[in-house]
Amino acid sequence: MTTTLHSFDTAIDLANNGIGQYTGQTNPEYANMVGPFGGVTAAAIIRAIERHPDRIGEPVALTVNYLAPVTDGSFDITVRAARTNRTNQHWTAEVAQDHGLTTTATAVFGVRRDAWSDTEVTMPTVPDPESPTHTTLPGPVPWMRNYDMHYVDGAVPTEPAESSSSTTTLWVRQRPARALDFAALSALSDVFYPRVFLRRGRMLPAGTISLTTYFHVDGTELARQGTDYVLASAHAQRFARGYFDQTAQIWGRDATLLATSHQIVYYKD
Amino acid sequence: MTTTLHSFDTAIDLANNGIGQYTGQTNPEYANMVGPFGGVTAAAIIRAIERHPDRIGEPVALTVNYLAPVTDGSFDITVRAARTNRTNQHWTAEVAQDHGLTTTATAVFGVRRDAWSDTEVTMPTVPDPESPTHTTLPGPVPWMRNYDMHYVDGAVPTEPAESSSSTTTLWVRQRPARALDFAALSALSDVFYPRVFLRRGRMLPAGTISLTTYFHVDGTELARQGTDYVLASAHAQRFARGYFDQTAQIWGRDATLLATSHQIVYYKD
Repeated sequence: MTTTLHSFDTAIDLANNGIGQYTGQTNPEYANMVGPFGGVTAAAIIRAIERHPDRIGEPVALTVNYLAPVTDGSFDITVRAARTNRTNQHWTAEVAQDHGLTTTATAVFGVRRDAWSDTEVTMPTVPDPESPTHTTLPGPVPWMRNYDMHYVDGAVPTEPAESSSSTTTLWVRQRPARALDFAALSALSDVFYPRVFLRRGRMLPAGTISLTTYFHVDGTELARQGTDYVLASAHAQRFARGYFDQTAQIWGRDATLLATSHQIVYYKD
Repeated sequence: MTTTLHSFDTAIDLANNGIGQYTGQTNPEYANMVGPFGGVTAAAIIRAIERHPDRIGEPVALTVNYLAPVTDGSFDITVRAARTNRTNQHWTAEVAQDHGLTTTATAVFGVRRDAWSDTEVTMPTVPDPESPTHTTLPGPVPWMRNYDMHYVDGAVPTEPAESSSSTTTLWVRQRPARALDFAALSALSDVFYPRVFLRRGRMLPAGTISLTTYFHVDGTELARQGTDYVLASAHAQRFARGYFDQTAQIWGRDATLLATSHQIVYYKD
């Protein structure tokens, strides 16, 4: 019997070159319009920190800045524990290639404790992912083929019609199915096509500049999601002369708010 | 005639020690429970980047990570242009004191261009800041005295009563009045007391770990706000075993969405 690595695990597979130094290889299956899917770069950074021998706790926050496209081939990730506190740890990370820095990041890892807890926002009411009313559209770029995407609102526009809403809501899981972990959740936080496509009813030049994700569960709670679909919903608040923001929620089917995520996106129109 | 520097400008006043190296002094007027108000540290970082000779454009995004309290006295800010693209520039920043790193940050500066634009979210409908129905409560910590805060919803709890909503909305401006700039707007993005106080109806240990702000205006649009009040509104999405998130909007009185901001906060309950 042979086991084959999931394409996502191949894409974020890292070789150790020293403490906090890792080398990965871009995977063409996760290619975006230019360079790889930003979510897979975020995932590789989380994976690099997870593998650092000094790491304590689990992801609480991640900010990834996309400086330049990662080009096909190998990339180096350097991660550094900037400060270790009693219950949390601050990290900085950089991704570099021969041509220079492509990505900077900061992350907070932490230990969760018993404390009063509450989810204040409510999960959108939508049909379940198995409902035949859903549509799964093939994505326009390679990385999208690694996800089962069942749009319940705001699918990728297929005809030139403007929309007054930038909201997209979809059930999504990795294809083939793979148990949800922090690396996968980090990638899912960037699973939305650019909101400006939806508003304008067409594709145009756009790319994430900075992505921030807050994690609301620990590894045990995350593992409970198994390989099931999660519900991902995103909208923009303002499109302002070349930059728009996006704010997103990722829910488990059991109504657990797994992560909230925000990004600022460059666009040209 | 003598002119006195506004206390905010004193708090973020920086001496140059070399290219990209600055030294500031904490100002007791901006003290928080432990260390200075996080907003003033964010503002000092924006100011440091603004003063760098290589800087192009204006703030688009800022993420500030609070590693450890800044102690009273001098602090060093180091900023570095990690990458300069055609229309944007990526920065990294660190704040250090004798005892080590206190703060890391990343920022994106950019140039805005003519492009299709739209504000999709709507400003909360509230009475104007001059309305006599508003209450201005003295803040429990020194930095709050530097702001006129007129709460229209979710004021600092004065009696032990839990709330089912974490939403706070207030009109706020600097005291004494000072024209709004990016440094001041960066500070305002952290002007909210911890959401968990409102939900629990009491103060408890809490502190911002990481703050991300997206700026939606250029300097000319920002200057139009003058010294007027802005409307700031924030709520939490989830409180999860020691960490909660906060998402916020800052509006000009003329319904311009100036900034959206997000943070993850440690709490103990």
